[in-house]
Amino acid sequence: MLAGITEGASPRWRQRRSARNTRAADQAIALARRAHGRFRCELAEFIRFPSVSAERRHTKDVERCAHWLAERLRRIGMDHVRIVRTKGHPIVCADWLRAPGRKTLLIYGHYDVQPADPLAAWESPPFSATVRGRFLHGRGASDDKGQLYVHVKALESYLATTGALPINVRCVFEGEEEIGSANLAELLRAGGHGRADFAVVSDTWMLERDRPALTESLRGALTLELTAKGPAVDLHSGNFGGAVKNPVHALCEIIARLHDEAGALTIPGFYERVRPIVSDERAYMAEIGPSDARILRDARVGHAWGERGFSLYERTTIRPALTVTGIRGGYQGSGAKAIIPASAAAQLDLRLVPDQDPARIEALLRAHLRTLTPPGIRLGVRTLFRAAPVVVTRSHSIVRAAMHAYRRGFGVSPVFLRVGGTIPIVHLLQTELQIPTVLLGFALPEDRLHAPNERFFLPNFARGIETSIHLLARLGEDR
Amino acid sequence: MLAGITEGASPRWRQRRSARNTRAADQAIALARRAHGRFRCELAEFIRFPSVSAERRHTKDVERCAHWLAERLRRIGMDHVRIVRTKGHPIVCADWLRAPGRKTLLIYGHYDVQPADPLAAWESPPFSATVRGRFLHGRGASDDKGQLYVHVKALESYLATTGALPINVRCVFEGEEEIGSANLAELLRAGGHGRADFAVVSDTWMLERDRPALTESLRGALTLELTAKGPAVDLHSGNFGGAVKNPVHALCEIIARLHDEAGALTIPGFYERVRPIVSDERAYMAEIGPSDARILRDARVGHAWGERGFSLYERTTIRPALTVTGIRGGYQGSGAKAIIPASAAAQLDLRLVPDQDPARIEALLRAHLRTLTPPGIRLGVRTLFRAAPVVVTRSHSIVRAAMHAYRRGFGVSPVFLRVGGTIPIVHLLQTELQIPTVLLGFALPEDRLHAPNERFFLPNFARGIETSIHLLARLGEDR
Repeated sequence: MLAGITEGASPRWRQRRSARNTRAADQAIALARRAHGRFRCELAEFIRFPSVSAERRHTKDVERCAHWLAERLRRIGMDHVRIVRTKGHPIVCADWLRAPGRKTLLIYGHYDVQPADPLAAWESPPFSATVRGRFLHGRGASDDKGQLYVHVKALESYLATTGALPINVRCVFEGEEEIGSANLAELLRAGGHGRADFAVVSDTWMLERDRPALTESLRGALTLELTAKGPAVDLHSGNFGGAVKNPVHALCEIIARLHDEAGALTIPGFYERVRPIVSDERAYMAEIGPSDARILRDARVGHAWGERGFSLYERTTIRPALTVTGIRGGYQGSGAKAIIPASAAAQLDLRLVPDQDPARIEALLRAHLRTLTPPGIRLGVRTLFRAAPVVVTRSHSIVRAAMHAYRRGFGVSPVFLRVGGTIPIVHLLQTELQIPTVLLGFALPEDRLHAPNERFFLPNFARGIETSIHLLARLGEDR
Repeated sequence: MLAGITEGASPRWRQRRSARNTRAADQAIALARRAHGRFRCELAEFIRFPSVSAERRHTKDVERCAHWLAERLRRIGMDHVRIVRTKGHPIVCADWLRAPGRKTLLIYGHYDVQPADPLAAWESPPFSATVRGRFLHGRGASDDKGQLYVHVKALESYLATTGALPINVRCVFEGEEEIGSANLAELLRAGGHGRADFAVVSDTWMLERDRPALTESLRGALTLELTAKGPAVDLHSGNFGGAVKNPVHALCEIIARLHDEAGALTIPGFYERVRPIVSDERAYMAEIGPSDARILRDARVGHAWGERGFSLYERTTIRPALTVTGIRGGYQGSGAKAIIPASAAAQLDLRLVPDQDPARIEALLRAHLRTLTPPGIRLGVRTLFRAAPVVVTRSHSIVRAAMHAYRRGFGVSPVFLRVGGTIPIVHLLQTELQIPTVLLGFALPEDRLHAPNERFFLPNFARGIETSIHLLARLGEDR
């Protein structure tokens, strides 16, 4: 399928500009190579901020991280660097718009990170930025601080050598990706980012170390909190055990009934709008995508699970899924406490695929949950966030430029990869705002995103910066 | 059935002693009435110790509470007051053995309490001992500090007036009832309590304010902790959701499958040794026992649940039950975290009835759990404690004395009540050590034992002390 995309012959003016661009890119790359030690130290500094957006106690740390990042953008010569206040965590924006007549690239990234717990599972403290072997370890190392910083250092490499960028650039770095990007969405919908022709997002991964990948689809997400309430207060399990419905039992039963024996979801109507994937596409996925064995190895588990009739790559990308991400009810201390708990709560994380609409799925799920709730239990359902699934258009110029950049940066053509995760803002950029977006990943599948001992493969930091430089250079040839 | 128990005519020597005893009891009661204000203040002091045996951070508080109690026993004139060290929390023992030729009563109680959480649900702090209306509120107010202290104040009332008790007494007050009484069991099995002819335990409740009750059966208990382990580390639910078995799902499915649609347990062989209850006994229970409506009112819930074919009173006393007392897995912080958790844990509390043997039930349950565990999940099962069920013999002299004492203290004959809870030590006293035991309760069903806002009905503190005085007096007439 890659064969369909070719590059046409260029007129002379374009060749001249291309030569100038190539010289500038070479100078930028030479600087990036010389300064690489310093770049790594700065990235470590970036990772040391515990900018956990989900945890209130880290609000100040998120703020401090935003200021640090803004200061870096100022120092490398970006214009109009600003910290945009929101109802939540701030957005760091910066522009460089001194290439009149050229197009404008929006670079998106996020400086917030997932919570670090369980802390005991980390081999080095999550916010220590520890190098072991060729990896830099730390929460956010690859998701998304390392990948975001790739672009910042590419911009610096240009600005520090030629004093200019080959294209207009707008940076939009948010602090709420891990909690749903609601405030960034508001800013973008209001046009607060300014005009842009295309966008690059580096918050995904390659297939393997030497197999760069452009992500062509992302799953949507729907996160809900369920609260099952039973007795008004905890009851003595000796005195009342056997006579009163236990909200922990009820919640467990509800959760157990959400899947059938074949691993499919039991929500009526849930699969109705799942877009059929043509057999060509499934064949491409089987050819290039990770095998079942590879996925199990990445997950470090011995047994597969899930919907019958699909490979693990398919189950995690083109098929929807439901995961309970946390559950809690009753006594949580040491030892035992003889109670029927008054309540229990769980969080559900659904991943959706085209053309499932999160709002419609939420309505179907809420209706289903009502039918599953037994008498004596009141079930509360609270929506934490919704994001639509995304498919990237392979034929757009930004995608072609990214393919070129990867080939130059990594010496090999990228594949098109489907990804099971969600980047809420991509749907907004690409579909609502009609800014064609490319997902250029530099993380590796084994980088333990969202897990303890998250890390970033340091050679990809270097190659990533060069790839970004090539991307800027190539886009600079477009008018 | 009460009609079968009558009191025979007494010889003259007995009548003389009875008259002396009555005078002494009257003096004791007069003192108890005069000193009642001080007694209440002391009980409040007792309740203010957060002697939570299950929580390590309260170890020192349990110790301090033991010292306070020992000091009180010394001050009232008990002999050989001692704090017996154990591997866990101490046991407070005291004797008064200056009535040669008379029998010896063992008074059992526990000064440890349940954990106070959820703290937010308390209307006054759990260890503040706050009076509202005719209730003294606080964790342990009725379970078991208030009921234990009833007997201490009865002893004081005698010793402060006549300088003697009508019978030999041994007090055994432990600090580990809420965590299974393992160390007290060891002490008793080794004979460390000294010889005793019968025992009184006040750790149960009456039917209503004016309906005192002797508990004639207690359920046994089996508490287990289940741990379901899946992936080695938390995985990203976007990237792996749909391909890896989630230990929270697995644990929920296991819990859901422990009951069938009719509310019965699915463990093969579980009901095999449940002793059939004769229809007379069921008729007596239906006549005197709490109605379904009353049990629902006490529990403050609107819907009944449980095993088909049994009243709620039966479900909670003569039928076994399984309750999940706590569950925990995955992300526990605020907001959302997109993970497939590495593990989940739950605690199961089973209540057993005669003649279910806790060890045999544990083996059956463990085998059943193995069949319920799906591939990819490792299920760990840890036993936290086991206690055998108990039936009290109605015809023994201690039971008859207790009936008499209740009639004098409350002005009404007691009923025989079955109770769903467990007092681990009763089986040991009555069955293993063959010390006939009476369960003389002063709490009320609405006293919120083990729940927030636990309380003790203060009129029962006063009536309880008088009942205990009458019990001591009556037992003093036996030789």
